[in-house]
Parts: sequence; C-alpha cells; structure tokens
Amino acid sequence: MTVKNFQSLIEKKIREISDFPKEGIAYKDITPLLQCPSTSSIVIDAFAQHLSQSKVDAIVGIESRGFLFGMMLANRMNVPFIPVRKAGKLPYHTVAKKYELEYGTATIEIHSDAIQEGWHVVVHDDLLATGGTANAAAELIKQLGGNVSAFLFLIELTYLFGRERIKNNADTIVSLIKY
Amino acid sequence: MTVKNFQSLIEKKIREISDFPKEGIAYKDITPLLQCPSTSSIVIDAFAQHLSQSKVDAIVGIESRGFLFGMMLANRMNVPFIPVRKAGKLPYHTVAKKYELEYGTATIEIHSDAIQEGWHVVVHDDLLATGGTANAAAELIKQLGGNVSAFLFLIELTYLFGRERIKNNADTIVSLIKY
Repeated sequence: MTVKNFQSLIEKKIREISDFPKEGIAYKDITPLLQCPSTSSIVIDAFAQHLSQSKVDAIVGIESRGFLFGMMLANRMNVPFIPVRKAGKLPYHTVAKKYELEYGTATIEIHSDAIQEGWHVVVHDDLLATGGTANAAAELIKQLGGNVSAFLFLIELTYLFGRERIKNNADTIVSLIKY
Repeated sequence: MTVKNFQSLIEKKIREISDFPKEGIAYKDITPLLQCPSTSSIVIDAFAQHLSQSKVDAIVGIESRGFLFGMMLANRMNVPFIPVRKAGKLPYHTVAKKYELEYGTATIEIHSDAIQEGWHVVVHDDLLATGGTANAAAELIKQLGGNVSAFLFLIELTYLFGRERIKNNADTIVSLIKY
C-alpha cells in the first residue's frame, strides 16, 4: 500500500468534533478508528515500517491514549512496552517530570527500573499538539540512561508547532496524519 | 499450552508492591508483564481462547489499563474496540454512569453511538477488585441496547468478592490469575 493510500484510509476514521474540549477547538476523535480493526492494523503496519531500519529496544506509551497503539506496536516489534503515567499511578519507584500546560502544570512519571542504560527507545502518543508531554517523556527516558530514537504519533496538529519544540529530543519524528 | 502453564508464566510477570496505594495493600503491578511481549501474547491467546465459542461483536476496555490488552484483543478478534473513559474525556455525545468507590464516587462514560442494538459485548479491565467499575461499564452497554456476554480480567482479587457483585450482569466471568 502506498503512503497516500493508508493516510486516506486512516483519515476517514478520524472524526472531527467541534468545540471540544472548549469553544473553537476542532477535536480529532480517534474512536471510529478504534472501531475498525483493519484500519488499526494499518496504523501498526505504518509505524512498524517507519521503524524497520532502526534499532528499537522498547516502546514508551503515554497514558492513556498512547496505551492503545503503543502496546500493540511493542507486541508487533517484540519489544517491551513501558507506560508513562500521570503522577501517583505507578506503584514502584519512579522518576517524575513536571511540565507546562496552557494553564498550569502537569506531572508524568516512569518506573525508575523501566529503561536499561543505552536502550533505544521510541516514544508514542496518539497526538502531537504542543509537544509538552512528549518532551517530558523524552527527558524521563534520558534521565534513566536511555536514548530516544523516535517520536511516533498518529496525528500531528502542525499549526501548534510541537515538532519544533521536540526536535532536539529525538532523531526521528513521525506522524501519520497531519492537520 | 495447558492452563496451569500459562497461568504460571503470567504470574511470574506480576510484581507485588507492598503498601501501594496505601498501607496494608499489596498492589499487583503488571508492568513486568507489559515488558515481556511473549507473555503478553499468551494473555491475548488465553483471552481469545475463552471467547472462541462465543459471539463477540465488540470489546469494551476500561480506561486506562483496560486499554492495553483490550485494544490488542479486539484487533486479534477482528472486532471494534470501544473505550469507556473517565467523565469528560470522550468528545462526542455520551451516556454516563456514576458509581460508588470506597470513599466517594466516580463517573465513567461511553460514546452513545458506540454500541449497536443487540451487539454481544465483552468488557475488559486488567483487574477485578470490588467490581464497581465493571458493573458501571456493563450498565452503560445495556443502556445502549447491547448485551454483555462476558467480563474478562487479567487479575481477580477474590477476597474482595467482586465476582458476586457483577455476576448478574454477564453470563461469563473470566480472570486469568486469581489472588
């Protein structure tokens, strides 16, 4: 399948919801994609293809929508899946990173034994918006001695310039669908 | 592989963390399982085997740990994955269910167009504790005209008697590992 073909198939399964979570925002709803197993498989195929030339030791998925395709991708690539979660959710020793949101701050965590020194780690989330969460996840991985080889997103909101903010934290940034 | 064999393999990948989230609780940490793709595949195989004689139209996974194996299982079974999420997270029209927690209440939601009338739906979460969340999810599915054919859990804490509380909401209750 060509890149254009799979992009068009995936895009058909993303529904735009006006004024969510607040007025003026056109939210990209991936639930129609989740309802379609064949198109979900195309997403995984596309991600796996992007990683086919890279050394990948683990996939990090960001809670909670990054769990959906992240876990499947890790399984496909036969590597560990590592969850990055909101503060207070992971039960073992963690390292935490606080980062800025539009209003206020958020904190994410990773288990401190999750990454082995020198591992090549891929960070996955469904959406690249401003890049704050992805950057925080990358910094946690580096803090544990890992290398961030790629960011993989299903959707990129190019008008928020997240790519500019995260580009110093990985060699490769992949998004399947751009708005 | 026999049932005993796969249970022992999965159980080795579940780590007990003392006093989390509070003193006296021995938390079952599934992150070592997520790190092991071959054992994660055994979980999916076991779930799929339990469903092999049933009509399954969709898998509902409960946010956020129910997304991990729920999405993979839906893909394996070639059926839709439907997320049940915490209140305020789903962007389209929803139906909501409030339920009791040990202290206070919680509310979960499902998209109101997610389930088709008469569908046979499987509810998945990683853990069966008191059964409050699973029951609330089942009631949302019924409210939309679906039938709950099974509850599938990775882990069941039998000493909390969740099975008793949810047994009227589905014909089948499966848990792979019991404590």
